[in-house]
Amino acid sequence: MELGGLRFTKMHGLGNDFVMIDAVSQSVSLDADAVRALADRHRGVGCDQLLIVEPAAGGEADFRYRIFNADGGEVEQCGNGARCFARFVVDQGLAAGPEIRVETLGGLLTLRLQDDGQVTVNMGVPRLEPEAVPFIADAQSTAYAFSVDGKDYEIGAVSMGNPHAVLRVEDVDRVPVAELGPLIEAHPRFPRKVNVGFMQVVSPEHVRLRVFERGVGETEACGSGACAAVVSGRLRGWLAQRVAVDVLGGRLMIEWQGADAPVMMTGPTATVFEGRIL
Amino acid sequence: MELGGLRFTKMHGLGNDFVMIDAVSQSVSLDADAVRALADRHRGVGCDQLLIVEPAAGGEADFRYRIFNADGGEVEQCGNGARCFARFVVDQGLAAGPEIRVETLGGLLTLRLQDDGQVTVNMGVPRLEPEAVPFIADAQSTAYAFSVDGKDYEIGAVSMGNPHAVLRVEDVDRVPVAELGPLIEAHPRFPRKVNVGFMQVVSPEHVRLRVFERGVGETEACGSGACAAVVSGRLRGWLAQRVAVDVLGGRLMIEWQGADAPVMMTGPTATVFEGRIL
Repeated sequence: MELGGLRFTKMHGLGNDFVMIDAVSQSVSLDADAVRALADRHRGVGCDQLLIVEPAAGGEADFRYRIFNADGGEVEQCGNGARCFARFVVDQGLAAGPEIRVETLGGLLTLRLQDDGQVTVNMGVPRLEPEAVPFIADAQSTAYAFSVDGKDYEIGAVSMGNPHAVLRVEDVDRVPVAELGPLIEAHPRFPRKVNVGFMQVVSPEHVRLRVFERGVGETEACGSGACAAVVSGRLRGWLAQRVAVDVLGGRLMIEWQGADAPVMMTGPTATVFEGRIL
Repeated sequence: MELGGLRFTKMHGLGNDFVMIDAVSQSVSLDADAVRALADRHRGVGCDQLLIVEPAAGGEADFRYRIFNADGGEVEQCGNGARCFARFVVDQGLAAGPEIRVETLGGLLTLRLQDDGQVTVNMGVPRLEPEAVPFIADAQSTAYAFSVDGKDYEIGAVSMGNPHAVLRVEDVDRVPVAELGPLIEAHPRFPRKVNVGFMQVVSPEHVRLRVFERGVGETEACGSGACAAVVSGRLRGWLAQRVAVDVLGGRLMIEWQGADAPVMMTGPTATVFEGRIL
């Protein structure tokens, strides 16, 4: 594992932080050990995920991007990472923008850099069939009766490529996310576990959201969680087509025309520093 | 707070990590907000402490260095930071070495870069009078009977500029540091609280040490804790003049001739990357 000389850029999307590596203009070969070493917050650069920009294998895409978790495993998608990716390739002069097509493990992704510097990501078409989530239910519905620890709740169940449960609450500041999150995450009706969103509806155009991420715990900004919350809130009659979602890390704009339309997520990116491994 | 363009180097000493800023060859003015922003691990560079190298105010020193905690507060001393400082000024061409004299908030410090790249820090003369620690006792002793939670222990009490309690244990891997540490840290006989070292004596030249740091919890490498452990172990007749101290983050060599001699700490440094704020 020889990392000396490697150039990188550190970015974040609402506090979800990334080491960005341009493997188009420099030769890069990273194994899982190297990813873990770079992601280490005390002995490396430190990040939630490492994002590598590679030349496209061919076809419609301009680039291919790969995302690795801090533990070295490759993952399919990350909304905050996709926004940073778009900003990065334009800032580095690798693409002209404003529209960028990219190959990911999860398929072809189209990103759009907005005039104000925010980036819009097509997060795909939500799936609502219980078996697609997966969620155990007799029939598909926009909301399901659900009991946890002897209490009854009403939840939405949405797949954004990953499973989400959505609960409406009166006040997100007063929800015991750390207690209730793990109970719902591991509930037997979600056989592959679930991300849990707690949503406070401020108005049809504005919600506040806290998300307990599957296998992680509460996070500052879960892009797919914001999408799932708006899809579920819209199906349940509470929300407009375009909704501002305030997560702990800041604001995402989520737009969904309904039915078979994809969910469009728009949000900020921040470029913090550029570096070179010594 | 304008940080754009600021150049820095990221280093660590046994996992205790630092953002190093050369304020000799670049103009730097950082307030507490800027320190907190740089130290933020998700939205900034990320570090335990920020270390600024400035020209000496005059007199015997080559440089002045200032250390700030991640919360923005300035602190007096840090053994791991001092080692990184010595390596940094030589690597940056600011000093020739091998001996470097530096002004700190805690007074003049002399550092020595060894041929193998390790750095030796003069950690000062230990104070053993109870009122200097401070520790409540009838008379000064090398060891004190001490009871916590209904159990009796024997402890050493040493000041290395900061207060330390030292307990000998059979096996550091089996000590309940997270439970016992806070009870001793907050014990009424230590009016300004205390750092707690749990030391396993492997041989007179080799100990294993775990340290519960005051106000922090267990850390990977507490330099002053390693010094205090060797001083206490030597006074109690268990240790030689030069001792290898294995802490969680790696190995420190501690040397103490006894009585009014200063404690000399030798350990490694690692330079991870250089960067520039965008």
